[in-house]
Amino acid sequence: MGRKKMILDLDTGIDDAMAIAYALASEEIDLIGIVGSYGNLQMLDGVQNSLNLLSLLGQPNIPVYLGEKHSMTTQTFNTMQISQEIHGMNGIGDITIPKSDQSPHPGSGIDFIIDSAKKFQSDLIIVPTGPLTNLALAIKQSPEIETLIGKVVLMGGALTIPGNVTPVAEANINQDPEAANEVFQSKLTITMVGLDVTLKTLLTKKETQEWRQLNSTSSRAFADIVDYYIEAYANLKTNLGGCALHDPLAVAVAIDPSLVTTLPINMKVDTKSPFSGRTIGDERRLNSNEATTDVAVAVETERFLSIFMTKLSTLFSKN
Amino acid sequence: MGRKKMILDLDTGIDDAMAIAYALASEEIDLIGIVGSYGNLQMLDGVQNSLNLLSLLGQPNIPVYLGEKHSMTTQTFNTMQISQEIHGMNGIGDITIPKSDQSPHPGSGIDFIIDSAKKFQSDLIIVPTGPLTNLALAIKQSPEIETLIGKVVLMGGALTIPGNVTPVAEANINQDPEAANEVFQSKLTITMVGLDVTLKTLLTKKETQEWRQLNSTSSRAFADIVDYYIEAYANLKTNLGGCALHDPLAVAVAIDPSLVTTLPINMKVDTKSPFSGRTIGDERRLNSNEATTDVAVAVETERFLSIFMTKLSTLFSKN
Repeated sequence: MGRKKMILDLDTGIDDAMAIAYALASEEIDLIGIVGSYGNLQMLDGVQNSLNLLSLLGQPNIPVYLGEKHSMTTQTFNTMQISQEIHGMNGIGDITIPKSDQSPHPGSGIDFIIDSAKKFQSDLIIVPTGPLTNLALAIKQSPEIETLIGKVVLMGGALTIPGNVTPVAEANINQDPEAANEVFQSKLTITMVGLDVTLKTLLTKKETQEWRQLNSTSSRAFADIVDYYIEAYANLKTNLGGCALHDPLAVAVAIDPSLVTTLPINMKVDTKSPFSGRTIGDERRLNSNEATTDVAVAVETERFLSIFMTKLSTLFSKN
Repeated sequence: MGRKKMILDLDTGIDDAMAIAYALASEEIDLIGIVGSYGNLQMLDGVQNSLNLLSLLGQPNIPVYLGEKHSMTTQTFNTMQISQEIHGMNGIGDITIPKSDQSPHPGSGIDFIIDSAKKFQSDLIIVPTGPLTNLALAIKQSPEIETLIGKVVLMGGALTIPGNVTPVAEANINQDPEAANEVFQSKLTITMVGLDVTLKTLLTKKETQEWRQLNSTSSRAFADIVDYYIEAYANLKTNLGGCALHDPLAVAVAIDPSLVTTLPINMKVDTKSPFSGRTIGDERRLNSNEATTDVAVAVETERFLSIFMTKLSTLFSKN
């Protein structure tokens, strides 16, 4: 029995960077690759961030694949201004970290998802933390992987609270509602880690200061990067008192589902204005016996934050 | 220790009629009065239905009070066509039942709520199954009752599935979103029994046929009334396979909270188009320590249906 294999599907902004660190720090799983997505920034810029961060964290040889550059229904993608304000123009808080000497893997990210599903089957966990375009195209191209993949634990959506882009839409889902709807309507086994729980897991400058005091290359870089994010959250006037640990929480739940309480619901995504991007129960499948999605509705905040800090501090100390 | 006192706040259509029967059949509580609301039909017509049903069920002396005739933000109320299709023009499936010899109580329904709150305090349970206008006006007139009333168990809203009037709005909340928002933002202790659970509790003609075979005046009347409702549901093409037991489920949960699983959430109601009438977590109170509302998200369908049938059949046998 080997460890579970994990693929991260990232639009590598700041919380994605923490998700990479969380995965690398987790001996429970084997991070076999990263697929790039657009969202917080352009896909190619996110891929470069992923390469640089893997190198910074001592794992330069984990492959990073190119994914889609835009949604299934558009021909281009323009980064939203709010994304640039939250993640910086370069996606990692306008902090410069050394460039990796690695290049993106020459293969297609979508093929990598499909091939990994066939190879590792129920041992494969996919964690998308951006739009669901890559995953939707993978299951469209190869529907049999829907029942092969062990589980998909995605950061996205909002069920019990409003969205963060519109009153109904969360940013990742909003980038490609059609793709998200295809994923939720598929046979994939899904855990939705949405704003319902991620806005309850907050990091403050107290924690980044702890990293800074570790005084390693990675700890100082992450402290600076995440401070940018914390300040951006303060400017949002959401009054949360810290930055939300959206993407690392999804990785954490993929490894330890007991961190959250979930509701089994067959979900859908609205694709028509003004409700476009809303993640909501599918009323046509309300009384089906089995639900394909577990929606996280409560989280053990303190336990997660404790594990998060232990893992990242240990990793940063070594790099 | 006396029994808990219950006030029903009803727009007496068909499921409200079943709610009255459920309350009368429940020796666990003492139904001290009914307040009339508009919604499924005009307020005065609903009050007459309540009087007639109490008489039919052998309790003609329980007082029925007049409530508001329209929402807090309108001067009139026009019954929606869909309400007439579901409940019939007279609100009880166009079935004629004998007219009560009682008149509405001369006092105000809102004063009755306030006076009962002061008199019975934590022993008082209020079950609104229509718009929340009466309750909102009662707490506006006498805010101290918010912390006096034992609990409010309301039928209304939808959190994890779409609404039944718009993609976001459930009918009761939609009638007066401002009133509902004031109730949810108050200090009242609330259980929200919404479409999330009521659409999972279904009655079919198999059950109404059991009532008919009891061959009492009330059992035959209720069988005919509810058959109208079941047929209306079939015409809605929602494919549920029966009629939803919206209002009686709220009464049942008021008596036995263990019938549902709830999430503690501080709720709000959107009041602006196109999201008007949406019941959703209040993001500004997301990380507050205490939530004022428990939202029902799962229900023990079979246990509820069994209790429902036992209670109503017993009551019908005697009347």
